[in-house]
Amino acid sequence: MHIAVIGLGYWGPNLVRNFLSNPDVTAVTLCDKNEERLNNAAKKFPGVRTESDLDKLLADPGITAVAIATPVFAHYNLARKALEAGKHVLMEKPFTRTTQEAEDLITIAAHFGLTLMVDHTFLFTGAVRKMKEIIDSGSIGDVLYFDSVRANLGLFQPDVNVIWDLAPHDISILNYLVESRPIAVSATGMKHYYDLENIAYMTVHYDEHIIAHFHVNWLSPVKIRTVCVGGSQKMIYYDDMQTSEKVRIYDKGVDVNSKEGEYNLRVQYRAGDMYAPQTANTEALSEVVKHYLHCIKTGDKPICDGAAGRDVTAILEAAERSIKNGGQKVALPASVSGNATARRSSFILTNS
Amino acid sequence: MHIAVIGLGYWGPNLVRNFLSNPDVTAVTLCDKNEERLNNAAKKFPGVRTESDLDKLLADPGITAVAIATPVFAHYNLARKALEAGKHVLMEKPFTRTTQEAEDLITIAAHFGLTLMVDHTFLFTGAVRKMKEIIDSGSIGDVLYFDSVRANLGLFQPDVNVIWDLAPHDISILNYLVESRPIAVSATGMKHYYDLENIAYMTVHYDEHIIAHFHVNWLSPVKIRTVCVGGSQKMIYYDDMQTSEKVRIYDKGVDVNSKEGEYNLRVQYRAGDMYAPQTANTEALSEVVKHYLHCIKTGDKPICDGAAGRDVTAILEAAERSIKNGGQKVALPASVSGNATARRSSFILTNS
Amino acid sequence: MHIAVIGLGYWGPNLVRNFLSNPDVTAVTLCDKNEERLNNAAKKFPGVRTESDLDKLLADPGITAVAIATPVFAHYNLARKALEAGKHVLMEKPFTRTTQEAEDLITIAAHFGLTLMVDHTFLFTGAVRKMKEIIDSGSIGDVLYFDSVRANLGLFQPDVNVIWDLAPHDISILNYLVESRPIAVSATGMKHYYDLENIAYMTVHYDEHIIAHFHVNWLSPVKIRTVCVGGSQKMIYYDDMQTSEKVRIYDKGVDVNSKEGEYNLRVQYRAGDMYAPQTANTEALSEVVKHYLHCIKTGDKPICDGAAGRDVTAILEAAERSIKNGGQKVALPASVSGNATARRSSFILTNS
Amino acid sequence: MHIAVIGLGYWGPNLVRNFLSNPDVTAVTLCDKNEERLNNAAKKFPGVRTESDLDKLLADPGITAVAIATPVFAHYNLARKALEAGKHVLMEKPFTRTTQEAEDLITIAAHFGLTLMVDHTFLFTGAVRKMKEIIDSGSIGDVLYFDSVRANLGLFQPDVNVIWDLAPHDISILNYLVESRPIAVSATGMKHYYDLENIAYMTVHYDEHIIAHFHVNWLSPVKIRTVCVGGSQKMIYYDDMQTSEKVRIYDKGVDVNSKEGEYNLRVQYRAGDMYAPQTANTEALSEVVKHYLHCIKTGDKPICDGAAGRDVTAILEAAERSIKNGGQKVALPASVSGNATARRSSFILTNS
Repeated sequence: MHIAVIGLGYWGPNLVRNFLSNPDVTAVTLCDKNEERLNNAAKKFPGVRTESDLDKLLADPGITAVAIATPVFAHYNLARKALEAGKHVLMEKPFTRTTQEAEDLITIAAHFGLTLMVDHTFLFTGAVRKMKEIIDSGSIGDVLYFDSVRANLGLFQPDVNVIWDLAPHDISILNYLVESRPIAVSATGMKHYYDLENIAYMTVHYDEHIIAHFHVNWLSPVKIRTVCVGGSQKMIYYDDMQTSEKVRIYDKGVDVNSKEGEYNLRVQYRAGDMYAPQTANTEALSEVVKHYLHCIKTGDKPICDGAAGRDVTAILEAAERSIKNGGQKVALPASVSGNATARRSSFILTNS
Repeated sequence: MHIAVIGLGYWGPNLVRNFLSNPDVTAVTLCDKNEERLNNAAKKFPGVRTESDLDKLLADPGITAVAIATPVFAHYNLARKALEAGKHVLMEKPFTRTTQEAEDLITIAAHFGLTLMVDHTFLFTGAVRKMKEIIDSGSIGDVLYFDSVRANLGLFQPDVNVIWDLAPHDISILNYLVESRPIAVSATGMKHYYDLENIAYMTVHYDEHIIAHFHVNWLSPVKIRTVCVGGSQKMIYYDDMQTSEKVRIYDKGVDVNSKEGEYNLRVQYRAGDMYAPQTANTEALSEVVKHYLHCIKTGDKPICDGAAGRDVTAILEAAERSIKNGGQKVALPASVSGNATARRSSFILTNS
Repeated sequence: MHIAVIGLGYWGPNLVRNFLSNPDVTAVTLCDKNEERLNNAAKKFPGVRTESDLDKLLADPGITAVAIATPVFAHYNLARKALEAGKHVLMEKPFTRTTQEAEDLITIAAHFGLTLMVDHTFLFTGAVRKMKEIIDSGSIGDVLYFDSVRANLGLFQPDVNVIWDLAPHDISILNYLVESRPIAVSATGMKHYYDLENIAYMTVHYDEHIIAHFHVNWLSPVKIRTVCVGGSQKMIYYDDMQTSEKVRIYDKGVDVNSKEGEYNLRVQYRAGDMYAPQTANTEALSEVVKHYLHCIKTGDKPICDGAAGRDVTAILEAAERSIKNGGQKVALPASVSGNATARRSSFILTNS
Repeated sequence: MHIAVIGLGYWGPNLVRNFLSNPDVTAVTLCDKNEERLNNAAKKFPGVRTESDLDKLLADPGITAVAIATPVFAHYNLARKALEAGKHVLMEKPFTRTTQEAEDLITIAAHFGLTLMVDHTFLFTGAVRKMKEIIDSGSIGDVLYFDSVRANLGLFQPDVNVIWDLAPHDISILNYLVESRPIAVSATGMKHYYDLENIAYMTVHYDEHIIAHFHVNWLSPVKIRTVCVGGSQKMIYYDDMQTSEKVRIYDKGVDVNSKEGEYNLRVQYRAGDMYAPQTANTEALSEVVKHYLHCIKTGDKPICDGAAGRDVTAILEAAERSIKNGGQKVALPASVSGNATARRSSFILTNS
């Protein structure tokens, strides 16, 4: 397959490198309307074709599929053009600026029978896949809460706030791990430098007794990347800054007997063993590329398809509105469904 | 001085031990209406007087001062009685159940010219005092945000939710370190076991460009106790679970030039040295006791006086209301002022 | 039982506190020939008897047993007197200055049918007992190596070097965990301040393919307390500075096929799950006291009896000689046998 | 300059990549007598020349310099041939199998006026260079000890034991940081799988009151890479597994007054601030390549020249002999001088 990578800023070259290493890829074409960026990227990949004219690129019948790694404001138009030109699309996160744009692209891709996949890279890490396996096995019991922190110094984005920049990773992990349907979002944040939040807190609400909370921060002196999933039987703590044993399962829990009234509360704490399962440490992006190519070839639904991308965008949109409204809860559209089970089946198939 | 400790559950015996070790204390009397608790505590302190009848205790003219370590619902009545009996009062946190109760006690203590102090123990740790010193020196610049996490497994309380149980520590640290006046609170939480939240998130809002956020959790598999204070020049990270170097100062910061419009954003990151100042590691509670006795003797205002206690209670009350109202912002009463500077002066005096 | 604690420097008061909390103890008498130390200790334990005259103390028929916590040079004479006066003896580590002294005390205690136990406190920690359980279960395979580091700043001792001060802990752990008989010791060290080593490295050699190495250091900027036990199937890493999960079992190993000659070496690495078993966190010294009293009552052999103490002393003596001889291997006396299995049985009995 | 990289196993491709990125390099030729390895490496660097015949390669007058990354047994012959063909030589560590071989190569390079440099990569890390700067500034006082641990699972080497494989890194750091002349080496180790030690401990002795100790281990469940340098005023702890603040300076120390005899020992402990200076995080190997090319162009002596390589080899040789002799001290040849000051000057020049 011949793949075009559109957008060669920070992330694009990583896509190029991974497509080049994949045995199913016969050629990669680099595309960026900025000639300087295009030439800089080309230098790192001697012998690779370049094209600064998108229309010419899309008109090339030899190109099977594209990967779009531009700033988010350009996502919708580029993806639409590519799909209408018959190309499969892998889109960087965040998928689109609005839920409506996401729905449009889903419809168009379905109409043309093309693969539309969102690069939720973390779903392809050994750590997140191990967490999924453990949660699906039922061993942690019911999920009670999901707490995520993604903080470090920089990289300030000029066009989107810290939620749009960092939270897509964690929201995609949440939606992947937790089957329940989120119903509303509230968020609060602060702008210290220009008209975009650089620190923010977001809560995702459910009908059930689950709460999900996110702390995203461009202004933290220490780099923190943790996800804690509290279950009724066990608890998972995922610390991505660890060099090994990133995922730890704690046999800890609480049994509370409050039938007798709160002043006779009886609480039993369970504190058992901890174990840290071995996780695969292949580069996640090479798995993303492999999965994308697999879905193109087989027609399988990607584990992070357009619907998954839309669900993330819907939560980001709601969070932005909540911040503007002083932190009020904003309901999510009914279309946000988290039909994750179907997607997961496809994924397991791919990787077996 | 002869001191009575009222309430001998979990914390009371720690107060007794510290009063007994203080050279200004000539006698300690233990008081609890529950005879079993009283006797159990008495065993640990052979030769110490006990008294189960509060009225008798308060009628004893030899007793100068009391320390109250009962559940919070009893605080107001006990403190009122003690003050009216002419005893100085040291109250465990949280001070009272309502801001109104706090105001009453402040008024009564002022009327009788008695010392009224709240045991905000963390203000007496070497770590928090070092942070105060650094922030007051101006070296971190303006405070931009305050982020606190206090999480572990247990101890579920039968009468108050996780915010009332854990957040008083962190709110007292916030109010001590940050001079600005908080104006509103929003909070969200989840009850998984009985009718009290066991996990909660709270935001304190300011007029200025400061945001303070708290995560309190009785259901965490790992014990976390961190406070991050982001400044415009430097940043402080306080990790109370470290056995040494608990407070770390990062010479990190960001200079953003956005005059030219957001697409021409220029961001300069500063990442310099980190240093971890040596901090005193005397037991905080012995400093609390020392400060209480000092204030009784001199009439100095305690660094954590009734007003400081009321400010914490006001934030807790507002948080509880916010949770009930789906996370809406709840304004704080105008009395919450954080007249911290005056209190600090007194403290510096005490310790020099 | 009425117990006398002899020697009230740093460690003695901890023994007193633990004896006082034990339900089998009816009285504790404090003994120190230094009146000031005796009075200071007495203040912490109001109502406890004191005695500065050892002979009077030993003449008291009401006293069943003693615990000796003086500097090591006084151990032999004190223990000998106590045993000859018919008192059971619990001795602080290191047991004696010479192997010969140790043998003498063992003989005397056996002659009078008295319990002679050495306070190898770490054998009574949840961590070490869990390690013992795991190694004895066979799950780590054969022990290949034992590596220990015990380093921090201070506490410089005036009479013994850093090996005599710190290594007894780790040697007692080694001898407890590893059944094989050590045959020789080599050691090297450095004196920077006065005529006693403040940093030292020691190797214990075996007939079998086991190596044990110790790093002890009074001059380390960070506090390190680790023991690594490499097994042919799994490996244990014990980090005593962790506040939780001190003991971690790694399902890691190596299979080397070198039959074909070293240039065709085939190595298979196994890197599986890690798990951290829950360990008891009762105070080790209270278990020491419980075990001592149990052995007195039943006549059971203590898990750390005189022979265990002698084995540690023999290794310390050999290490000291090796340092003096430029690091040469010094053979251990044949009596060092590590008849640990018999001792262990007794211990399991005690605690079941 | 046109550079040839000889030996394309594990490390060779890293050299190729770094030479290709250096602006002074016009061409790189890959050389390996094993055609398969050569072709595999060539695939990663499309458009790069290959040559399997060493003689042809060395006969090419267009090639200025070589880098040799073969197993150590081939180092001497390859370097000798290259130098005699007029090529500058960068050699992977360990430099040679014997001190004599090292001396020969030094002589030959001097005779032809060619640059001979050893790739002691760690000397080019931001961490080690910062440590050098701090030690040279005098702020830690006199160096009292150097303690190094380099442990992880694998990579078992078929031809050299764990000391030859891992210790060159740490010995080169020692010799770089500590100006004093090492005089002897003792070592002990254990073979568990085939006829080469997989765990070893080594001590380097000095005339002065310095001790250096190394623990190298292919069989550790956790990856450890620490160097502790104890100074009379301050202490440095370098933990290469940290993702930030790898180098930490502790204002800790001890003042011992033992004039009055050991029983009146007075020890003052100093425990002040810790600070972690910012260190450069450019890839060390790109600095190695830059320094090598600089020395070729200017004739400057490399900071890790043949003499530095010989000093490391001499210590490795002595360690091997010591292990064979049961751990006895083996004197180092008088040529081991650590004339580091001269080398350092050159280096500072290079990088200013």
